[in-house]
Amino acid sequence: MTKTFAPDSVGLVTPFTVQFDEPLDLACGRTLSNYELVVETYGTLNANKSNAILICHALSGNHHAAGFHSEDDRKPGWWDGYIGPGKAIDTNKFFIVSLNNLGGCSGSTGPRSINPDTGKPWGADFPKLRVRDWVHSQARLADSLGINQWAAVIGGSLGGMQAMRWALEYPSRVRNCVVIASAMKLSAQNIAFNETARQAIISDPEFHNGNYLDHNTYPKNGLAIARMIGHITYLSDDVMGEKFGRDLRSGSFDQGLDELVEFQVESYLRYQGDSFSKNFDANTYILMTRALDYFDLAREYGDDAAAAFRRAQCDFYVASFTTDWRFPIERSREIVDALISAQKNVSYTEVESPYGHDAFLLPNEHYCESFSRYLAGIDTE
Amino acid sequence: MTKTFAPDSVGLVTPFTVQFDEPLDLACGRTLSNYELVVETYGTLNANKSNAILICHALSGNHHAAGFHSEDDRKPGWWDGYIGPGKAIDTNKFFIVSLNNLGGCSGSTGPRSINPDTGKPWGADFPKLRVRDWVHSQARLADSLGINQWAAVIGGSLGGMQAMRWALEYPSRVRNCVVIASAMKLSAQNIAFNETARQAIISDPEFHNGNYLDHNTYPKNGLAIARMIGHITYLSDDVMGEKFGRDLRSGSFDQGLDELVEFQVESYLRYQGDSFSKNFDANTYILMTRALDYFDLAREYGDDAAAAFRRAQCDFYVASFTTDWRFPIERSREIVDALISAQKNVSYTEVESPYGHDAFLLPNEHYCESFSRYLAGIDTE
Repeated sequence: MTKTFAPDSVGLVTPFTVQFDEPLDLACGRTLSNYELVVETYGTLNANKSNAILICHALSGNHHAAGFHSEDDRKPGWWDGYIGPGKAIDTNKFFIVSLNNLGGCSGSTGPRSINPDTGKPWGADFPKLRVRDWVHSQARLADSLGINQWAAVIGGSLGGMQAMRWALEYPSRVRNCVVIASAMKLSAQNIAFNETARQAIISDPEFHNGNYLDHNTYPKNGLAIARMIGHITYLSDDVMGEKFGRDLRSGSFDQGLDELVEFQVESYLRYQGDSFSKNFDANTYILMTRALDYFDLAREYGDDAAAAFRRAQCDFYVASFTTDWRFPIERSREIVDALISAQKNVSYTEVESPYGHDAFLLPNEHYCESFSRYLAGIDTE
Repeated sequence: MTKTFAPDSVGLVTPFTVQFDEPLDLACGRTLSNYELVVETYGTLNANKSNAILICHALSGNHHAAGFHSEDDRKPGWWDGYIGPGKAIDTNKFFIVSLNNLGGCSGSTGPRSINPDTGKPWGADFPKLRVRDWVHSQARLADSLGINQWAAVIGGSLGGMQAMRWALEYPSRVRNCVVIASAMKLSAQNIAFNETARQAIISDPEFHNGNYLDHNTYPKNGLAIARMIGHITYLSDDVMGEKFGRDLRSGSFDQGLDELVEFQVESYLRYQGDSFSKNFDANTYILMTRALDYFDLAREYGDDAAAAFRRAQCDFYVASFTTDWRFPIERSREIVDALISAQKNVSYTEVESPYGHDAFLLPNEHYCESFSRYLAGIDTE
């Protein structure tokens, strides 16, 4: 008996690997002699290859953005609510390309891969990456798929940084740049949270200076703490209050405290940390958070964001969410102001949502409608 | 040559220890058969003992609130800006009592003390405490000093919780209750940050289930991470931005990334974490954060804060700070609303400050003036 998927689902999808043998020069000064990227695509590339959309993932994302890997798969891809037939990123219209970024841990070349020079996993010696390195590797991917110009490059959070960098690095290859819940650079507080997460990983004795795979172990505790910190910052105070309040999971204040009194939010967070740490690579986490910290759209444009955006040739769609305190609406307004100064076309929406930074992944009528209409207006002839 | 202190400093102060031999029943159901509290006092108790103020400390505070312990001491007590001759808490008028709370690590009986039943440090077996336990032990301290009624009980943050609990537990013994940057209970997000900090400590292999002293070690890394998390939440995004921005401490983006690029805020935070972890006790940190989490002013009053405050007989002064996101102004407004419903006299000020939760410790003209005037109005005849 074959399972039937919902009519607006892309259904079963199969990732594939693209091998790149031309060396890639990285911003850090090092070169990757060859690398692989794991990719999924949804929809059909049209004859003149003008309907392709690139999805750029965030910190802990990967190539699996929509659909299911098997009929038993209970969870669809991470952006399934927005990718599919008739959805905001409409697979009836667009050909969507989603990849696991270089340095990732879901199949693309990264710290868990074998370093051809040593025959051992790269571990901590994997080159440090910057957002532009991802963009360059994504451009190679576009070449390999015969896509000269993206109808749109789309990303949320760290993905939005990639979308903006695309617009500056390859102005002629992007027609629309979609930047959701993102920023032109992190604040000191953002960097501080990322550094605390990294320190939790690095100070875990199982980290072994990043070469934990050589020791058949991994920094489970440190990575769990890192995820707990991250998770709190992705949610709003309000939504944590609504979801958990001060409900107890065990114990009671009437019976005295020697039986442990534990709040629901505590065990929820520990569960999130534990399950993440089993599946994600610690070196990738460090690499991704550093790329986030290092990103500064206008650094090489004299810190003038409008000057930076003047290079772009595309139109822009920017969205932010009212309770997002990790990438607050002020950061998106700065993007919009700079785009207007650079005389670019920009559509901007501030979405009312209680869900904090995570809102960009979640169903929301206003966001969905606005996002859908923008993409519906893109010409793919 | 004797050092001269500023005329508004309390100058040299010497802590002393008060021994209590009457058993103290705790909220957890256990009993401490005896205990010691370390205390400092500033100013002079008047003849009818009506000018005494109790200072309740916050998470990482202690008895040393004002003045200097030696002439070489470079740093005064933690609230020196507000305690002294002519200052807001005026030692010309008041006799100020400041203690290290039970369970602390600055000399009062706590997890580092010897458990008389075992002859070894209490460690993880030290009883879990609640805010009311501190209040009860502080009442014993008042008894020992011959103070029947406080002119005021004052506290910020966790200290404000103690001040409020005082007003409910000993209504006739408090004339004024001063609650600064505090809350009637923590939010789920607050608890989540505290739990992440605790997990960082507990999962450090040097924690040894809390009995690290038996192993001649302590969970330095875990405690440093805990402090880093805490420290970020005490500061505002704005003040971190002003203080550090994206300034680099080492490396450069032009030279490639293989020499480490490090932001100022990263090394600042690591320094804060390291120096804290050398001086503070991990079990105390866990105990104090749990007391914070457990505190819920109105729990036993049917979750009706006005009903709780109806027990109080004192007047109230409440202050909050605009950029405090750990104890946001909404939490103080809730206190004020409940006090008004309970028909209590309450003075309330919202102070404009960029400094986040830490603002309650820092110089601020509006706050200082408002606080001073309130205390100046207290009758000590």
